[in-house]
Amino acid sequence: MYGLIGRMIAQPGKRDELVAIMQAGTGRMPGCLSYIVATDTTDRNAIWITEVWLDEASHKASLALPEVQAAIEKARPLIAGFDSRTVTTPVAGVGLDVAD
Amino acid sequence: MYGLIGRMIAQPGKRDELVAIMQAGTGRMPGCLSYIVATDTTDRNAIWITEVWLDEASHKASLALPEVQAAIEKARPLIAGFDSRTVTTPVAGVGLDVAD
Repeated sequence: MYGLIGRMIAQPGKRDELVAIMQAGTGRMPGCLSYIVATDTTDRNAIWITEVWLDEASHKASLALPEVQAAIEKARPLIAGFDSRTVTTPVAGVGLDVAD
Repeated sequence: MYGLIGRMIAQPGKRDELVAIMQAGTGRMPGCLSYIVATDTTDRNAIWITEVWLDEASHKASLALPEVQAAIEKARPLIAGFDSRTVTTPVAGVGLDVAD
């Protein structure tokens, strides 16, 4: 499995809008076992995205999906930056959508 | 929802053993929507744990479960420390075990 833990910073006041776009753009993605969007409780502009994929290739392939491309296009102007990105190897867990 | 993203450091050479204990100790926990244990790809002693709970109370209650208490007891001597802990508010996601 291939995991990502990242923190994204929204333009001031744009976090809710950005979260809504990300939520809509990430419905069914082949090989996606978990994709959770969360707001930071201490930084009002920060969003955490934690992902688990079957493998790195599934993650890369998802970036080419039309709905993901569309979401990226809409999200781009609302993003101020990314301030942390960690690649992990998920080992086990509750809530992995293994039916994918 | 209540989320946690944390990084734990195992005693040198003890990461696999620690992961196995955490995996065994976290089977069914009421209110747990996601609980993923992952190894860090750049630090051979680091483990990431990303959690989503129905609410903060569910998380607190889980710490009192006998199987979780037993896992904590076994894990404690293998843990060197915790170097990051973030509380989040999960908003949406693929792979949330909402059947709980």
